Amino acid sequence: MKAKVYVRLKNGVLDPQGQTIQSSVERMGYDFAKEVRVGKVFEIEVESEACRKDLEKIASTMLANMIIEEYSIEFEA
Amino acid sequence: MKAKVYVRLKNGVLDPQGQTIQSSVERMGYDFAKEVRVGKVFEIEVESEACRKDLEKIASTMLANMIIEEYSIEFEA
Repeated sequence: MKAKVYVRLKNGVLDPQGQTIQSSVERMGYDFAKEVRVGKVFEIEVESEACRKDLEKIASTMLANMIIEEYSIEFEA
Repeated sequence: MKAKVYVRLKNGVLDPQGQTIQSSVERMGYDFAKEVRVGKVFEIEVESEACRKDLEKIASTMLANMIIEEYSIEFEA
């Protein structure tokens, strides 16, 4: 089973990397990208969903900087 | 509407960052993480799905290194 931890910048936090990508997309001649934000996905092979509580602890202490980032967890069979 | 471009290492490509996280998780005393792999998510605000073809071009030329990475695109209303 796969657990996916999505980590993204909180709304309102500036995303220079996203802005750089957006201006590059415009320079390539595309105008459809109104805003670009960049996040991370941690794919973790696990036995079952029983690890959810521990995974939340790891996400909030190691994978995400909770001052500027938020996370969400999904499990895929 | 939001387009999400997921970029991840191809299977078989070594993921040192993922391995480092996995050993840190074990050092914290957790044994549920069999494997950890790290990817990126580009969240792009768009008008509609009409941009899919262009987005695939951008993903394969700018967002992913197609030699070692693969991408997938999802649209969220």
